[in-house]
Amino acid sequence: RYGAVGPELLRFKDRNEKDMLLGMTHEEAVVHLARTEADSYKQLPFMLYQIQTKYRDEARPRAGLIRVREFTMKDAYSFHESEDCLKTYYQRVHDAYSRFFKRVGLKDVVVIESDPGMIGGNASHEFMAIADCGEDTIFMSPDGKYLANKEIATANFKLDTAPANALEKVHTPGSKTIEEVSKLLGVKTEQTGKAVFYVDADEKLVFAVIRGDLEINETKLRNFLKTKELKFATDAQIRAVGAEPGYASPLNVDASKVRIVFDPTAAKSSNLVVGANEKDYHYKGFNFARDLKDTSKISVVDIATIREGDPCPVTGKPLLMKRGIEVGNIFQLGVKYSKPMECNFLDRNGKRHPMIMGCYGIGVGRTMASVIEQSNDQYGPIWPVSIAPWQVHITALNRNVDAVQKAADDLYATLTQAGIEVLYDDRNEKAGVAFNDADLLGIPFRVTVSQKSLEKGEIEFKMRDGSEKGFFPAGEAATILIEKVRKALKG
Amino acid sequence: RYGAVGPELLRFKDRNEKDMLLGMTHEEAVVHLARTEADSYKQLPFMLYQIQTKYRDEARPRAGLIRVREFTMKDAYSFHESEDCLKTYYQRVHDAYSRFFKRVGLKDVVVIESDPGMIGGNASHEFMAIADCGEDTIFMSPDGKYLANKEIATANFKLDTAPANALEKVHTPGSKTIEEVSKLLGVKTEQTGKAVFYVDADEKLVFAVIRGDLEINETKLRNFLKTKELKFATDAQIRAVGAEPGYASPLNVDASKVRIVFDPTAAKSSNLVVGANEKDYHYKGFNFARDLKDTSKISVVDIATIREGDPCPVTGKPLLMKRGIEVGNIFQLGVKYSKPMECNFLDRNGKRHPMIMGCYGIGVGRTMASVIEQSNDQYGPIWPVSIAPWQVHITALNRNVDAVQKAADDLYATLTQAGIEVLYDDRNEKAGVAFNDADLLGIPFRVTVSQKSLEKGEIEFKMRDGSEKGFFPAGEAATILIEKVRKALKG
Repeated sequence: RYGAVGPELLRFKDRNEKDMLLGMTHEEAVVHLARTEADSYKQLPFMLYQIQTKYRDEARPRAGLIRVREFTMKDAYSFHESEDCLKTYYQRVHDAYSRFFKRVGLKDVVVIESDPGMIGGNASHEFMAIADCGEDTIFMSPDGKYLANKEIATANFKLDTAPANALEKVHTPGSKTIEEVSKLLGVKTEQTGKAVFYVDADEKLVFAVIRGDLEINETKLRNFLKTKELKFATDAQIRAVGAEPGYASPLNVDASKVRIVFDPTAAKSSNLVVGANEKDYHYKGFNFARDLKDTSKISVVDIATIREGDPCPVTGKPLLMKRGIEVGNIFQLGVKYSKPMECNFLDRNGKRHPMIMGCYGIGVGRTMASVIEQSNDQYGPIWPVSIAPWQVHITALNRNVDAVQKAADDLYATLTQAGIEVLYDDRNEKAGVAFNDADLLGIPFRVTVSQKSLEKGEIEFKMRDGSEKGFFPAGEAATILIEKVRKALKG
Repeated sequence: RYGAVGPELLRFKDRNEKDMLLGMTHEEAVVHLARTEADSYKQLPFMLYQIQTKYRDEARPRAGLIRVREFTMKDAYSFHESEDCLKTYYQRVHDAYSRFFKRVGLKDVVVIESDPGMIGGNASHEFMAIADCGEDTIFMSPDGKYLANKEIATANFKLDTAPANALEKVHTPGSKTIEEVSKLLGVKTEQTGKAVFYVDADEKLVFAVIRGDLEINETKLRNFLKTKELKFATDAQIRAVGAEPGYASPLNVDASKVRIVFDPTAAKSSNLVVGANEKDYHYKGFNFARDLKDTSKISVVDIATIREGDPCPVTGKPLLMKRGIEVGNIFQLGVKYSKPMECNFLDRNGKRHPMIMGCYGIGVGRTMASVIEQSNDQYGPIWPVSIAPWQVHITALNRNVDAVQKAADDLYATLTQAGIEVLYDDRNEKAGVAFNDADLLGIPFRVTVSQKSLEKGEIEFKMRDGSEKGFFPAGEAATILIEKVRKALKG
């Protein structure tokens, strides 16, 4: 991947001018470990995992821990003798991840099929925490039955399937854009076909056609073409294949010189306005199936950019668009890394095969940030007890009063001995300062030891999330708290 | 330090051509944190610590975890209102480190005063694990009363203090080196003075003189001169200050043109042979105090390279030379970082001062490697129980026998529930393979569950270090082991 990955892989040279990089993901390192340590089906399946720093030279780091250049990731890699074994294991990890995100306090996580992208492989799923500050776009039906990120989301567009009209060449002087030509001819943009020329990473020309009201999703197109990069073609490149920029036509572009891709919205709509491949002329009444003599070299594949409100492909209802933070991602890698790196095993019959791999990641910092995005108020974060840095926050007010000091010290000691993590604010700050700091730290269980309440034989208690507050008898405070914390940790 | 530190600080540029570096130490980052969070004497003293990755672009990484480019370090930084407070705190950390290294199982650690070097500050100590593979050189008296690394070690050299002879110019044709001139004149090399010219980082000339049998320690000289670099002067540079290469003389070098540094061995020995500052001539009978008219511009300071067997400065006994691994290092930084970075606090009188700092590091990987260097046999490491990755290793032989499986599973469950970390070898490997692997893993407590011993109602037990072995009654094995492990962890 050293050559295949873009500038997000940070490359540099050491003092001896050797090529170095900062690890952005660790498939290669782990495959090397696996091929060194395992070579028999008897050792399969197994999983290797680490919690480690990764580096990506992001063009635009943003939003605190959401997109950073140096981040902590839990990654894991599984090795199998068969696709079946991988699939079963993958589902187990999928389920474990779902439980994990729930346990750490994420209330709103969706699992979506995703584009394997840079990591590669056959199938992958993203765990998305829904949050307005997220940078991923997800489309879903209101009932949640359909879920997909924008790279693979589709829509069940309503198509015009009226009977075919005659194909008719019309004069459209100076009308190059969809807007210009539809205005001139008095048709809706849905009644036109939009032609876009690209060049791929090998400098080959691509001619993409979509219904005029829609935009091409370049990620979809790039993935379909299996190319690293798509750039818009120049007028010179378009003319070199005999097409007229602004008036290019699917009717007479030579499919042996250019790869033609139709979105279904353009291939299945009746009577579109399309270019005539001649300056200042279009055709009306274009019908893909009728008008193209040989469609064998033309690919019809979904390359549409989905918009909020487009009809859901499953339910037909208008799609909702949400922002999400990708907190986890799992991949069925297959043999993408094990085959070229010769990470092989001998099967039951003594035959050598590359190991079948899965890979599984959780963004540790992102998960933490997402929890807080979903769980906070105007005073600060509200930590779920499962991942709170401390479970109990003791504030001692007027700790110079012996009774206060003794009660608070005793409470701290008893809770700590019971294995509970306690932050003890033993500073001599004013109540207001101490309470503000406690809010800002967001520890779930809060206890205040003060002279006033101690005189009534009580210790004050409050949940950070406001779900409960009151007073405990001072002598029973530790026992009650231990029970409450343990119950919360189990739940 | 961006400019001050050499190529061990790895610098590179990100995709936006911004200067970046990999953190080799974190004083600046922590001082920035401290100045953001604290500004009053009321908040002092405090300590910040982290366990984190550091990077150094070492020219020669070597010896496994001993010298690597990416390593894990526990570092801590303390902030104080006075030097006294720092010194008291520094001593507490010093003592804690000594206890720590003992607890993790290092049998042979010496604490030596060291050169603060790149980190800087007023005083520093190194914690050195004695090991042959170490790359630091330590000098010590046989009784351990004197300890110093080679950068600051001194010796109580026996000097010739005979009455001064007359100064006499002698013809020494072609005798430029100490060996040549001492051979020609029939004197020992100890009866000569060696002159060496350097240029410092500012290209200023330095003239260093030491007794002829000794070598100059450039680190000592560089530190005394407070210069980053010393290079040997060229003949042209030597002649430019009016000295004759090979025959340079302390008698007539102009102290206003060149910095003159004498080692005490050259300043306090009687009757040395030194250059005459004239080709093919030396003087006999040079006596520093008598022959130099104005010594006010000449520094007399220890710049000698110490050798094994030189007389200890404290005990007078021959010094031993040992190899050590630097596992910890502590520094009294003073205001080296806080002053330029304006990390200030208001004192009791409302006056602003830079905070006084200490810094404290433990090399985590190096400590682990040092423990193993000191604790191993031909079969592998012998982990001390305090840092063993698991405390107990259970090997089940013939686990397909129900009684074996049940006994081993039960033992594993009971130990685990008692909070003991257990590695359970439940593979179906042959005894030889399982035992070899157990030796190689080096877990301190070893238990073997086999059909043979179970039939006698016993479970086999062995300490990895060979200190104990035998059989426990099967029913009591868990109880006995729990007690033994807990006792070992306390001890």
